[in-house]
Amino acid sequence: MTDRAPTHPEPVDPARIAAAARLPTRIAFLGFGLIAGSIAAALRETGSTPTLIAWTPDGRGPAEGLRRGLIATSARSLDEAIDGAELVILAGPPLAIAGALADGAGAVRARLAGEATVTDVASTKGRILELAEATELHFVGGHPMAGREVSGVEGASATLFVDRPWVLVPARAAREIDVDRVATLAAAVGARPIRMTAAEHDAAVAAISHLPLVAAAALVEAIALSDGGAEDWPPARALAATGWSDMTRLARGDPEMGAGILETNRAAVAARLRAYRDAIDAWLQALEGTDADAAALRARLEAARDALGPR
Amino acid sequence: MTDRAPTHPEPVDPARIAAAARLPTRIAFLGFGLIAGSIAAALRETGSTPTLIAWTPDGRGPAEGLRRGLIATSARSLDEAIDGAELVILAGPPLAIAGALADGAGAVRARLAGEATVTDVASTKGRILELAEATELHFVGGHPMAGREVSGVEGASATLFVDRPWVLVPARAAREIDVDRVATLAAAVGARPIRMTAAEHDAAVAAISHLPLVAAAALVEAIALSDGGAEDWPPARALAATGWSDMTRLARGDPEMGAGILETNRAAVAARLRAYRDAIDAWLQALEGTDADAAALRARLEAARDALGPR
Repeated sequence: MTDRAPTHPEPVDPARIAAAARLPTRIAFLGFGLIAGSIAAALRETGSTPTLIAWTPDGRGPAEGLRRGLIATSARSLDEAIDGAELVILAGPPLAIAGALADGAGAVRARLAGEATVTDVASTKGRILELAEATELHFVGGHPMAGREVSGVEGASATLFVDRPWVLVPARAAREIDVDRVATLAAAVGARPIRMTAAEHDAAVAAISHLPLVAAAALVEAIALSDGGAEDWPPARALAATGWSDMTRLARGDPEMGAGILETNRAAVAARLRAYRDAIDAWLQALEGTDADAAALRARLEAARDALGPR
Repeated sequence: MTDRAPTHPEPVDPARIAAAARLPTRIAFLGFGLIAGSIAAALRETGSTPTLIAWTPDGRGPAEGLRRGLIATSARSLDEAIDGAELVILAGPPLAIAGALADGAGAVRARLAGEATVTDVASTKGRILELAEATELHFVGGHPMAGREVSGVEGASATLFVDRPWVLVPARAAREIDVDRVATLAAAVGARPIRMTAAEHDAAVAAISHLPLVAAAALVEAIALSDGGAEDWPPARALAATGWSDMTRLARGDPEMGAGILETNRAAVAARLRAYRDAIDAWLQALEGTDADAAALRARLEAARDALGPR
């Protein structure tokens, strides 16, 4: 237990302990990386007693989770993992989650004893809800709005979800108990459950998460990879300060994760990206137009700052 | 001295103390905000004994600097400030620095006893060097590559420049002693002096600093201010995570400072912004094209991540 002291010296919120006590007794993770590992680490902090079991195709994440004392069992098969679980968390990469629902739902469902709640942690919800609603699973889509640049259970943090939103998107076949179980899980790890439709969620994350990812990657392309810019990159890089680091941090994330997110939310991201290109065009006009002056540039910057609102 | 302990508990680098001992005995600041205040705070840490004197048109910055023990004198006039100073630092906003060189250079020069070194701390160098070279000032343009979102001497930090580049751009009339004085100042506050031409500097900062500022402001405009997006902003904002904060932090900066920077580096910023728009267009194609798939998106993200290089 002492190994947690440096990262989380604060006492655990009693509301989290109370929520954890109401969790199902057996919870299965299909997929076990940063998010699943952080859920397990956060539950361990509450002293809660659900039995946690995890399975992945190659078994590496669960093996590491077992080594770190985050889970009780590294299952040898998907069947073993979900057998008897009242809550099954699809926690693999987004495309793997979609694949599991599309191809494996029949097999999964047959094992779910009719009562299990199924949830996921993917960053987009529209396609996953479509797939889930083509089954009879008691599915509640989930999206914990937290992450780190690092991936894998090695980056797991017991405090990753504290005070962060956790979006819940119930499928048509979801019962009240299913929504309650997932909301309780979110509360137990310190998150704030928020109910939304898949469309509302996907539009919102396209705006505040996926467009920023594309904007960061495009910035690197324009500066370090473009025909006219690449030869200037080494001297420029020597001067790079916090502004450049901040604006390119998202481009350091896991490319597979990013591609999965963008691929499953293409329409919403493209719509936002068009609005972004319009804003870029207006800036070009402001910088190159004959009526451009410092006062006009200042007014644009002031309007943007004011729109951001308090931190 | 104890009031500095919480922000800088480390011992000061002996190389800084040695550099500070070689500084001129009298240094004048024209303009006294975040950068000038941080220079003064960093010099104080070295135990160096140059007499620091500051003047601004409204006197507020120097008054606060005096109250904090950062300077010896808040000058009542520009003349009083520069009288006898061997190093004069133009530390006002960029447009004020340009204005001082354009309009006041004659008056300033007449007071500079023929031997004084003049430098500045503005974020762009081309226009300022042009103005300085129209005078006979012993001018060495400077740009400490450090900053904070806050402005004003209230945000001054003794460690702001530690391990940061400080670009030096000597004007034609600069002597060796002038370059040495400004390089010594940079070293005394912990920065790494780097010599560049004005054109090299302005192209580099357009890439790693000014384009990111425009990209951040345009992101806010596209999400929070656009016709199609503004009504979706409140729910999206509720989900905003670190990615959004990182990508919009620059848009929280001082609009007057930002406008001055962009206005004095318009051509270089516009050239980079065109490359950025091309990258955005390529992303739109990748998201909307018929040949678009997750593998292509992933390849783009991988290339961008690899181009960033180690942190």
